[in-house]
Amino acid sequence: MSKKDLMDKLDLMFFPKSLAIIGASNVPGKWGSMITTSILGKGYKGKIFPVNPKQEIISGLKAYPRLDAIPEDIDLAILVIPARLIPDALRDCITKDIHAAVIITSGFKETGKAGAALEEEITEIAKQGDLVFIGPNTMGIASEYNDLEAIPAPMGAKEGGLGIISQSGNLGLQIMQWVAHKEIGLCFYAGTGNEALLKASDLLAYFGYRDEVKVIAMYIEGIENGIEFKEIARQVTKKKPVIALKAGRSQRGSKAAQSHTGSMAGSFAAYSAMFKQTGIIQVRTPYELLNVAGALTNLPVPRSNRVGIMSLGGGWGVIAADECEDAGLVLPDLSDDIIKDLDTHLPEFWNRSNPIDIVGEGD
Amino acid sequence: MSKKDLMDKLDLMFFPKSLAIIGASNVPGKWGSMITTSILGKGYKGKIFPVNPKQEIISGLKAYPRLDAIPEDIDLAILVIPARLIPDALRDCITKDIHAAVIITSGFKETGKAGAALEEEITEIAKQGDLVFIGPNTMGIASEYNDLEAIPAPMGAKEGGLGIISQSGNLGLQIMQWVAHKEIGLCFYAGTGNEALLKASDLLAYFGYRDEVKVIAMYIEGIENGIEFKEIARQVTKKKPVIALKAGRSQRGSKAAQSHTGSMAGSFAAYSAMFKQTGIIQVRTPYELLNVAGALTNLPVPRSNRVGIMSLGGGWGVIAADECEDAGLVLPDLSDDIIKDLDTHLPEFWNRSNPIDIVGEGD
Repeated sequence: MSKKDLMDKLDLMFFPKSLAIIGASNVPGKWGSMITTSILGKGYKGKIFPVNPKQEIISGLKAYPRLDAIPEDIDLAILVIPARLIPDALRDCITKDIHAAVIITSGFKETGKAGAALEEEITEIAKQGDLVFIGPNTMGIASEYNDLEAIPAPMGAKEGGLGIISQSGNLGLQIMQWVAHKEIGLCFYAGTGNEALLKASDLLAYFGYRDEVKVIAMYIEGIENGIEFKEIARQVTKKKPVIALKAGRSQRGSKAAQSHTGSMAGSFAAYSAMFKQTGIIQVRTPYELLNVAGALTNLPVPRSNRVGIMSLGGGWGVIAADECEDAGLVLPDLSDDIIKDLDTHLPEFWNRSNPIDIVGEGD
Repeated sequence: MSKKDLMDKLDLMFFPKSLAIIGASNVPGKWGSMITTSILGKGYKGKIFPVNPKQEIISGLKAYPRLDAIPEDIDLAILVIPARLIPDALRDCITKDIHAAVIITSGFKETGKAGAALEEEITEIAKQGDLVFIGPNTMGIASEYNDLEAIPAPMGAKEGGLGIISQSGNLGLQIMQWVAHKEIGLCFYAGTGNEALLKASDLLAYFGYRDEVKVIAMYIEGIENGIEFKEIARQVTKKKPVIALKAGRSQRGSKAAQSHTGSMAGSFAAYSAMFKQTGIIQVRTPYELLNVAGALTNLPVPRSNRVGIMSLGGGWGVIAADECEDAGLVLPDLSDDIIKDLDTHLPEFWNRSNPIDIVGEGD
């Protein structure tokens, strides 16, 4: 597939004019219900076609027994049916001329040999049928400028410049929830799941390609094709900041990552070196990922590593200075001009030093 | 002063039956107003005597022009008058047979030579008069079992086992606010300010001595008498956990700490070694101080370093395993008994490994 072709298909995924939810349901607690109500709850403006042979109306929408009963074109299929039914459903999608799908369903590579075989089968079907899919074993995607949150519950994130790519659904959605809570502007969210067909690197290329995305945050457990990822990352970081949290750096964490999405976590040191080479900003915790992504989304990128600290209460200045020096930032002395200027604002005995303590007399 | 004598005087400070607020005020924004309304707001049950020559009623309480006009005994004096008036006010306290005081007022050692001389003067007056004081340049103290919050605004913390000692007022009160917000039980708060007379080590000894205190959290910029502190810490850590955040580990941070409360920050490595020797748990950030203090206050102290992780969503298990191994904790393999037991609860394909992923099928 050409790069242009891939970007066009991902445009169908993130800017669909119409979508089918295969396995939509009225039964509360089922994924087919959660995904449908989340899409409705967020207010997706395109056409929604629930597909379910047993229910005629789903969440107030007319449901169709089969995909081929839908009398209109479909840009995106979201699949929430049991794993064993996915191959036939994908074939139906291809017959219906659908080229983009999100496979929420789990029960594939992460569950053992039989699951892995099924995953190979659906990947082959998709390739033959010129269809790209995210998943399986993902908690979905979101596209805020399109008012589309195809995830278990709508987050109501504000539109903006952040793109999130996560190899863990729970963790990715938690970060998305924090993003919504902190009112950081969000563009896209993609939980990549087992990455049977589309990889984190494909999403990275897409987020790099779309001008709406200003900053990219990634949660990574393992990258299969390091050379390809590196090549894409090099291109994207020239245009916008990419922040990555690589999990599985410990022995136990690495083993857990492997059984989680079936990915090899690999050497943490090798990942760190690769991030450095490609200009990716590496962070260590989910909260750090959120904070760095939020800062780069909401504020201009700093032009140097020189920092001035001003605090109300000396303790915070001390703590901030410690953190800055740990992070390799420099706290320069204050110039005479700045001191003179501050002299006109601060009490006579202020510290005339960086960090600046905005001291206050007791009475 | 004997240890018994010091503990008795600190009992007067944290369990006063009556207190005088010297410099109490009706003018909003003044420290004399903030401290008075905070004490009233929290609901201190002892007797409160505002002292101010210009106001007759303060916050609904009868005010006295001078300390000697109060017809009753006073256990604790809280001073919020300008620095230059503190020496005479302390002499009045001594005449009134008061042995414990909190000097909120700033404008002492932290402002230069003249301030340092004034600080020496008031320290000498106190010593001669057998009075101990916290401060100057502190934002106050709190004693939750006594419903006393002599700080700029009442926090309404829940009664419980945590004692906080802070060499920064702003930082200490922020931690106290988080403690209140997270409903961690608080016993005492002490902002030690310039430590002209009472040092952080005296408070550490007192919090060690009082059975109500189960866990002690300290924010430290500098300790003057390392040998004394070490001796006290050794004793206290035998009885209860002590957690310390030492700030000023960087060059700039250390310099800032010096101008903040006039304390020498010293070598960070030396402090870390001393914490290790005395059994103090060292943390690096205010939030870590809060979290460790909260965990040890609300949960039993773990008996070993072996950890089992169970997560809903594999990503969190990976992250948690990474953090545990970084912290020197061990994730043992699961015993056959535990695996057998979990087999009866979890889906057939669960990972049978630690961290445990409580996987869920898609349908």
